[in-house]
Amino acid sequence: MTDSSPRLRVAMIGAGFMGAAHSQGWRVAPRFFELQAHPEMALLVGRDHGRTEAAAQKWGWGEVSTDWREAILRDDIDIVDIVTPGDSHAEIAIAALDAGKHVLCEKPLANTAEEARAMAAAAERAAARGIYAMVGFTYRRVPAATLARDLVAQGRLGEIRQVRASYLQDWLMDEDGPLSWRLQKNRAGSGALGDIGAHAVDLAQYITGSSLSSVSGTMETIIAERPVLAESSGLSGTAGRERGTVTVDDLALFTGRFGATDTTSGFLGSFEATRFSTGRKNALRIEVSGSKGALGFDLERLNELQFFDATAPGQTQGFSTILVTEPGHPYVDAWWPAGHMLGYEHGFSHQARDFIQAVAAGTQPTPSFADGLQVQQVLDAVERSAAANSVWTAVAN
Amino acid sequence: MTDSSPRLRVAMIGAGFMGAAHSQGWRVAPRFFELQAHPEMALLVGRDHGRTEAAAQKWGWGEVSTDWREAILRDDIDIVDIVTPGDSHAEIAIAALDAGKHVLCEKPLANTAEEARAMAAAAERAAARGIYAMVGFTYRRVPAATLARDLVAQGRLGEIRQVRASYLQDWLMDEDGPLSWRLQKNRAGSGALGDIGAHAVDLAQYITGSSLSSVSGTMETIIAERPVLAESSGLSGTAGRERGTVTVDDLALFTGRFGATDTTSGFLGSFEATRFSTGRKNALRIEVSGSKGALGFDLERLNELQFFDATAPGQTQGFSTILVTEPGHPYVDAWWPAGHMLGYEHGFSHQARDFIQAVAAGTQPTPSFADGLQVQQVLDAVERSAAANSVWTAVAN
Amino acid sequence: MTDSSPRLRVAMIGAGFMGAAHSQGWRVAPRFFELQAHPEMALLVGRDHGRTEAAAQKWGWGEVSTDWREAILRDDIDIVDIVTPGDSHAEIAIAALDAGKHVLCEKPLANTAEEARAMAAAAERAAARGIYAMVGFTYRRVPAATLARDLVAQGRLGEIRQVRASYLQDWLMDEDGPLSWRLQKNRAGSGALGDIGAHAVDLAQYITGSSLSSVSGTMETIIAERPVLAESSGLSGTAGRERGTVTVDDLALFTGRFGATDTTSGFLGSFEATRFSTGRKNALRIEVSGSKGALGFDLERLNELQFFDATAPGQTQGFSTILVTEPGHPYVDAWWPAGHMLGYEHGFSHQARDFIQAVAAGTQPTPSFADGLQVQQVLDAVERSAAANSVWTAVAN
Amino acid sequence: MTDSSPRLRVAMIGAGFMGAAHSQGWRVAPRFFELQAHPEMALLVGRDHGRTEAAAQKWGWGEVSTDWREAILRDDIDIVDIVTPGDSHAEIAIAALDAGKHVLCEKPLANTAEEARAMAAAAERAAARGIYAMVGFTYRRVPAATLARDLVAQGRLGEIRQVRASYLQDWLMDEDGPLSWRLQKNRAGSGALGDIGAHAVDLAQYITGSSLSSVSGTMETIIAERPVLAESSGLSGTAGRERGTVTVDDLALFTGRFGATDTTSGFLGSFEATRFSTGRKNALRIEVSGSKGALGFDLERLNELQFFDATAPGQTQGFSTILVTEPGHPYVDAWWPAGHMLGYEHGFSHQARDFIQAVAAGTQPTPSFADGLQVQQVLDAVERSAAANSVWTAVAN
Repeated sequence: MTDSSPRLRVAMIGAGFMGAAHSQGWRVAPRFFELQAHPEMALLVGRDHGRTEAAAQKWGWGEVSTDWREAILRDDIDIVDIVTPGDSHAEIAIAALDAGKHVLCEKPLANTAEEARAMAAAAERAAARGIYAMVGFTYRRVPAATLARDLVAQGRLGEIRQVRASYLQDWLMDEDGPLSWRLQKNRAGSGALGDIGAHAVDLAQYITGSSLSSVSGTMETIIAERPVLAESSGLSGTAGRERGTVTVDDLALFTGRFGATDTTSGFLGSFEATRFSTGRKNALRIEVSGSKGALGFDLERLNELQFFDATAPGQTQGFSTILVTEPGHPYVDAWWPAGHMLGYEHGFSHQARDFIQAVAAGTQPTPSFADGLQVQQVLDAVERSAAANSVWTAVAN
Repeated sequence: MTDSSPRLRVAMIGAGFMGAAHSQGWRVAPRFFELQAHPEMALLVGRDHGRTEAAAQKWGWGEVSTDWREAILRDDIDIVDIVTPGDSHAEIAIAALDAGKHVLCEKPLANTAEEARAMAAAAERAAARGIYAMVGFTYRRVPAATLARDLVAQGRLGEIRQVRASYLQDWLMDEDGPLSWRLQKNRAGSGALGDIGAHAVDLAQYITGSSLSSVSGTMETIIAERPVLAESSGLSGTAGRERGTVTVDDLALFTGRFGATDTTSGFLGSFEATRFSTGRKNALRIEVSGSKGALGFDLERLNELQFFDATAPGQTQGFSTILVTEPGHPYVDAWWPAGHMLGYEHGFSHQARDFIQAVAAGTQPTPSFADGLQVQQVLDAVERSAAANSVWTAVAN
Repeated sequence: MTDSSPRLRVAMIGAGFMGAAHSQGWRVAPRFFELQAHPEMALLVGRDHGRTEAAAQKWGWGEVSTDWREAILRDDIDIVDIVTPGDSHAEIAIAALDAGKHVLCEKPLANTAEEARAMAAAAERAAARGIYAMVGFTYRRVPAATLARDLVAQGRLGEIRQVRASYLQDWLMDEDGPLSWRLQKNRAGSGALGDIGAHAVDLAQYITGSSLSSVSGTMETIIAERPVLAESSGLSGTAGRERGTVTVDDLALFTGRFGATDTTSGFLGSFEATRFSTGRKNALRIEVSGSKGALGFDLERLNELQFFDATAPGQTQGFSTILVTEPGHPYVDAWWPAGHMLGYEHGFSHQARDFIQAVAAGTQPTPSFADGLQVQQVLDAVERSAAANSVWTAVAN
Repeated sequence: MTDSSPRLRVAMIGAGFMGAAHSQGWRVAPRFFELQAHPEMALLVGRDHGRTEAAAQKWGWGEVSTDWREAILRDDIDIVDIVTPGDSHAEIAIAALDAGKHVLCEKPLANTAEEARAMAAAAERAAARGIYAMVGFTYRRVPAATLARDLVAQGRLGEIRQVRASYLQDWLMDEDGPLSWRLQKNRAGSGALGDIGAHAVDLAQYITGSSLSSVSGTMETIIAERPVLAESSGLSGTAGRERGTVTVDDLALFTGRFGATDTTSGFLGSFEATRFSTGRKNALRIEVSGSKGALGFDLERLNELQFFDATAPGQTQGFSTILVTEPGHPYVDAWWPAGHMLGYEHGFSHQARDFIQAVAAGTQPTPSFADGLQVQQVLDAVERSAAANSVWTAVAN
């Protein structure tokens, strides 16, 4: 960046946990990467004026608003970054794209496949006019995950034989934990499946370069009743004596068939998304087995990639722990010398970088809304299979 | 053992790889454990006289025969140990039990549920006369696995929430590997499912103390055609140019529901049995998540047990790597001081010990033939589910 | 921070790799932590105007200068942050302190014990006037390292029995790597010992709460001659044909005795600092063994702490892998939910936070210059011991 | 082995813990390996007739004696296997060799360098007559350790740069543990240094193919007084109220210089032997760093070898975990299929195999008594250095 770099002014809609992460991305990316344009943190939109004001000051946004439409209407906004809950994504994103704003939208793309389809259509219309949309599956941009994709693309694994993907958390273990909105289907859409299973699906498809075409799934609500929140003040609300029904899944298990592509003839993958894997805090894990090698990734050790090279001399074959912190590894040379660890939020800087660079260059960033829709349709097929005694169910397209 | 210990004379039917393992069990158990009776390696039965003679000499069996009926007819044989392929288990075991011989039979109990049922019935008849039968799921007797069961039984995990079990191997990765008898359904019964999935099912049920009541499964033959063996000389036969069809599964994925018991209200488990998990040689893995803790086991690190204590102070919670080599751990005090590793074959010494002690005491050893039948019925339900588009299918009982 | 928070205006002297890290600390700390004062990135000082200008723009500093004295003379500078090579630390730091500026100085405090003593004296004088100095051993502020110190302080390890500390890198493995200034004693002071051994010493003393009183050491230059740089343009210079002599250590091995304190009666520690540990990139490792427990830390897995509780029930004792990402862990609640990893540079935000808070509160931040001096004197004693055939040598005080 | 194989009749002197391990070696080796001669467990010698009788029956020895001279005098004994405490090794071994018996002697070769020298001389005399002696450093024969040596010998590590070796145990942590004979210098010779440090020295020299020529060391008695045993009945004696002085080291730390050889120009190694490494049960660890690669071994994971290949493509470099259970790995093809773990006692079968094969072939087995003497002289030099303020001290030769 130089003084003469173009500016891209960002309005972020939403001021919760993901807002902090996205803010860090916009803030830090231009300090480490050479960008074609400089993002300016122009406008923060939230529902409550006081809280939004405080967040803007803490995170460093220039102005605040309580109406997302302001971001759409203003001429001096180039990018709309959506980090609200999923039920509002479609309305905001479509309006923004139609108004000529580039859009970065948190995952999941939407709560329903219908909304997602409308969003993908809006994105396609906008792209024809040079306006781009992207969905925020940031885990693709953890260097070890990107390296995994690269190794598959380079053919280091040969033909893929099978995939194992899981996203393990345990934050619902306490059965007296309150019945928050995340446990109510009408607000959250789904439970573990949509919240974290979506990441497992996206990452498995991204790394293998292959899409799921059909699934057989099972969903389970492990703790069926929980204390109703005395006051509905978010995650930290206090629980009362009354108990209500949990209407989303705590655990989703499914098997998927990855479709035929130019390089593979189709293979099976197993998937698990759970909030009851005691002791696992954020374990998004993928293992891919191929005819020439295998790789394994675990988000709880995000600077490492496991790699097995089946073409190496037999005497010394074994899973290698690659410390993905070398200058030649994806994204790494912008940061620190070899052996210096990156963390969770670096993915948001990488996302900001890739989005800015694509927009500045006039090219489609990935994952696109169409990619986000496809993940949504996989989840939708899992829900339909689970509702139909787990019969194999085609993914819509 | 003292000079005056009673003797239990063993005839082993079968002289292949498992014969070497069982021989080591009979040979070594009395050298480390104090047994109520001393096993004598009396008679080895094999098909080829010369090869059986050589095996007997190498392994230390007193006599040889080429007819398993000799073992049944002789009065001086107390125990019949069956390590032949699964299709002959039923005939031999039933004859032996009916003739008043105690029987140790390798897993799987039989190739079909029908045969397994007949065997379990014979075992029940025999038990009424003080003659006992046991099936050889030796992995229960790896100290770390036994400790896992003990921790669940002690309530250290609280209520079980979910289970993940897999058995990962990669020895079929080479697609030009020959079409051995293990890849032919008429001889092997099934592929990965029966060979290694059976272990995963038994171990998961053993550790949790709960049985699978229904399943939804998928089975896949990854490499459908392989070179026909030029000469049918076992695993090491040379492959010709002709290719034949693989008729068993390379990969089985299934979800199972563990039934309600006194201590649990039912929970889901995911299962995988594969011969295509590149780089994994013998990875029988179980992870059990409960309301108070979790545990993990991997046969490739068989001296270790992972344990997460959710009741420990939050600041220092984490998965502990227990080195299961302390005197207080199951079976360990008979062996070496703390920190001295055990290996694969120790399970066979433990099995010999437990079988001898039960027989000498006149009590039923476990796992019984009824336990073996139950595992067979789980596998049978998986096959039926896989054939019916993965619908949930009840396990027969 | 609110609009009415006081501002503390920072001038940073030095614009190399550590400048990027410190900049990130000043930039990010106020975005996550509630600070008593807000750091402003006011002035960046470098030798070359153009390069300093570019760095200031990239990192976000308000003004630039090529003369560090400007930072001292200006009234609108509150804090001087020194990230130049060690041979200039003393002059700048003493001048800044005497001029009433708070000082944060990168480690090592100085290249010689004499300079370090002068700096500590200046810091003591300044502190009497409410002006504070701190030395940048940031690894203390990796949450897992801080937790390690806390566990020792809480008595969870009982009496300390022994310590093992090492800092392993491999970036000098290539024997044709050039003879950079870091390999010349007159410029770098020492090699592995001062560069990375200093961190091992500080961290071991910090975690145990005990100081080294005497040492016995050995230092080795593994590759004695290297190609002379054709042009002296820093680390990335090209190497010529001529070879020159490496005058610093590649490897330092020493044993130290930690002195008696109120809580311990003295114990031994072993230390290793090396640039030739093939495959190790940045492995600062500490293992502390105590009468009630043990702990282990490795900077290459900086989100984890190993903890062994010898007071737990024997059956389940083992080293636990604590994921130090829980809200209750040091510094963590300012960042992300449980299970979200932190990275290398978070230590610089923690350092900025702690420095700002101490300065705003008018209290002495740690580690002080006196602490930095003490580490320098340990290194000095190691060098003297190594020069005297490894005899035990007292640490000056 | 066939019926016509020659027999080698073994007399084992000593009936303690190591007797059980050696018995297992003689018993099991011929059941898995094809040997040129068959070892017969002929005579067990112990001090107490009744206990020796019981041990012989349990372990399977043909006859017993309470006088080791009987083993020397009898014509039908070919091999004398010495597993008594170190202070009796010299007398027995020299007498046996002079009487024409092949000798396998447990480590350490002797309690003093003088005795060890006399033994090495006797072994040299005997070898001239075709009578062979070997010392029992069995850890060389753990397949992963043998593979480590092979990789170094094949040049896979290039030139060795440095070595780190440690043997960590914690069985003396309890400060009220009794003052057993192992803690008295007049009986045990030394503490951690001779007991376990000897293994670290032998293994480091074996793997690197290079010998230590000088050392600088420190030895520490961490708990100086312990309860005197009320009755002197071995390790399990009960402790009284009186406290006596521990006269051996609990912890030995030393640095050693490996001498120049044809392939290396000399390098440093660090060594640690401790009985106070809380939570470590039997962690004999070696890490060797070379110009082309590195390797790491830990006896607590004895089926694994860590290998770093610095010549691999940079993108995928990392430490590989080799599961040393493949048919191509040392000793493994005699045992089980790939992925089936071996344990502690397998080393004793490998030792019995190698000893029998060498004796049958009329060649010198390794490690010879000269090798054992050399290790003894390294330990002796460490003691002398420790007594002389840690000055560098030459290893005698």
